[in-house]
Amino acid sequence: MAAGKSPRSPAAGERIVIAIDCMGGDHGPSVTVPAAAAFLARHPDADLQLVGKQDILTPLLAKHGLSLGKRVAITHASEVVGMDEPPREALRKKKDSSMRVAANLVKDGVAHAAVSAGNTGAWMATARYVLKTLPGIDRPALCSPMPNRTGGATFVLDLGANVDCTPDQLFQFALMGGALAAAVTHREKPTIGLLNVGEEDIKGNESVKATAELLKAAHAKGALNFFGNVEGDDIFKGTTDVVVCDGFVGNVALKTAEGVAKMLTDALKEELLANPVRKMGAAILTPALKSFKRRFDPGRHNGASFLGLNGVAIKSHGGADENAYSTAIDYAYEMVKEDVLGRIAAMVAASPIQVTE
Amino acid sequence: MAAGKSPRSPAAGERIVIAIDCMGGDHGPSVTVPAAAAFLARHPDADLQLVGKQDILTPLLAKHGLSLGKRVAITHASEVVGMDEPPREALRKKKDSSMRVAANLVKDGVAHAAVSAGNTGAWMATARYVLKTLPGIDRPALCSPMPNRTGGATFVLDLGANVDCTPDQLFQFALMGGALAAAVTHREKPTIGLLNVGEEDIKGNESVKATAELLKAAHAKGALNFFGNVEGDDIFKGTTDVVVCDGFVGNVALKTAEGVAKMLTDALKEELLANPVRKMGAAILTPALKSFKRRFDPGRHNGASFLGLNGVAIKSHGGADENAYSTAIDYAYEMVKEDVLGRIAAMVAASPIQVTE
Repeated sequence: MAAGKSPRSPAAGERIVIAIDCMGGDHGPSVTVPAAAAFLARHPDADLQLVGKQDILTPLLAKHGLSLGKRVAITHASEVVGMDEPPREALRKKKDSSMRVAANLVKDGVAHAAVSAGNTGAWMATARYVLKTLPGIDRPALCSPMPNRTGGATFVLDLGANVDCTPDQLFQFALMGGALAAAVTHREKPTIGLLNVGEEDIKGNESVKATAELLKAAHAKGALNFFGNVEGDDIFKGTTDVVVCDGFVGNVALKTAEGVAKMLTDALKEELLANPVRKMGAAILTPALKSFKRRFDPGRHNGASFLGLNGVAIKSHGGADENAYSTAIDYAYEMVKEDVLGRIAAMVAASPIQVTE
Repeated sequence: MAAGKSPRSPAAGERIVIAIDCMGGDHGPSVTVPAAAAFLARHPDADLQLVGKQDILTPLLAKHGLSLGKRVAITHASEVVGMDEPPREALRKKKDSSMRVAANLVKDGVAHAAVSAGNTGAWMATARYVLKTLPGIDRPALCSPMPNRTGGATFVLDLGANVDCTPDQLFQFALMGGALAAAVTHREKPTIGLLNVGEEDIKGNESVKATAELLKAAHAKGALNFFGNVEGDDIFKGTTDVVVCDGFVGNVALKTAEGVAKMLTDALKEELLANPVRKMGAAILTPALKSFKRRFDPGRHNGASFLGLNGVAIKSHGGADENAYSTAIDYAYEMVKEDVLGRIAAMVAASPIQVTE
């Protein structure tokens, strides 16, 4: 892999290499290895670096039809970060953890991207420590596509990497989210909304109002497409392609959304299975219920990115199954192929407002 | 109505009087008057002050089996605040609006509580201006019961009255929310959760961490029952009786929850009605779907209170139907009957931490 015009960008025709933290997540190699095999079958122009304990991974390869060679390599890592381990401890003490080694492969130019389903805080701290931020970016943000009513997804950031953000940082999030949405949705100027408690300009706290001023100024100069203020429900209406907020608010919104969805689907299940007549009705509706479930399947939208790092780092849901995990690898692949890092660098360079400290 | 031991508390055996802003809401008197009639039929110990344009309200009374007399009075108000009118304008210019007159009836001791489905911002500004805050309370907070998986509801505050809050103010919200939950759920020491981005003490921004210290200190002295940090999904799990947050975060959580619920129920409807076979299945499941709908019916949990004012002020959903609106009147009645204001005053007085500026 050669150095591109911007950090970690692949050259034209270059094979895309992704490092997989095979040990991370609730299920570890029993999910990550078959997901890797499924990914390779779908993408003939991509190769994988499987990271983890060699004695565990090697026998699993054959089981899933993989063999070491041009497209698959194993990089041994002797340690695994526990799902509940404090991020700082993991960063300080486990220098040979599978997530650390995966991040190092990106830093060293062996891979373009790294994927982990491990401990979110530890993965975030590790990726940030190893990869550092892109020029012009103060802090990385956690960004995830959330399904909306249009059938597409809204890119929301920050989902919890930064509990306090300055207007300058929120402005950078807007640039990064815009670059990601443009790459993934192929819209040239994706719309950017600022999460607030009302649509009017006078709404919100001082930080949000100051951010709106920066976004308006950048919009006026054509640097991005600022829609204006949006509210929590706009995430799911799909009012804008991107929604920007600080990590405290974003994390509450994400967990709230998950909580409501779980409450409603659990209640629906209880009602549909409450007696034999209802069970019969539910049986007739199996295709409808399956299709309903598929619309919001986490496997369709698995993968949060740590945007703003000098390398692509993707977090999969810890509980991801094979299908969902391979979606997260697809997502990393797409980010590399569409040169999200190069796009972010270009947006930052072209921004009429330079806000790095 | 006589002055009680605490502001606006009813004396034992005293009739409860509620002022209704009959003109407010999307539907105005066509909803508020029949809802008032339904309320009166349910509560023989309560009377109503109907506020609004006399020439509109008078003919409606007979239509809904009401007559002026001991239990029903009309207080004329010549103006109506529009749903989109800026709150400050409404407060300054419409001194004879139906919501203003309803609040005045509470201030003057004619009514114990006032209910409006009108413009939220204007109603909040008006109620605050007219009623002022209780001793020991800096700012009122908007608090609403949100349905949870236990079949009960979680009281969340602040839902949007204050976009910036100090730890002292968040602590006061905890006292007020605790008093309300104790009154409504009849639990002596309702649990109080602090909305955060993780359960651990080290999580969150400085404001939330400082609030946690205040709550822990008050808990140690038995002044309230602090559970600790909770996350967005805990609201819907019903992990605690009360969830405390600032108005920016609370408003985003509320709108996010509404947005997800609407997206999911709309998608379910589409799937169930997509073809004739599915429609047949859905017909068999009508009781299940009705029961599902009933669980989260806004009519069951309609009514947000402006807690901390020296008077009970309730906001109904603007789009409330007759059933939902009469639930909001029930809620006002219950707050008066259970002496929520007296309970708040007692909790503030007994708090080992006095934090009013």
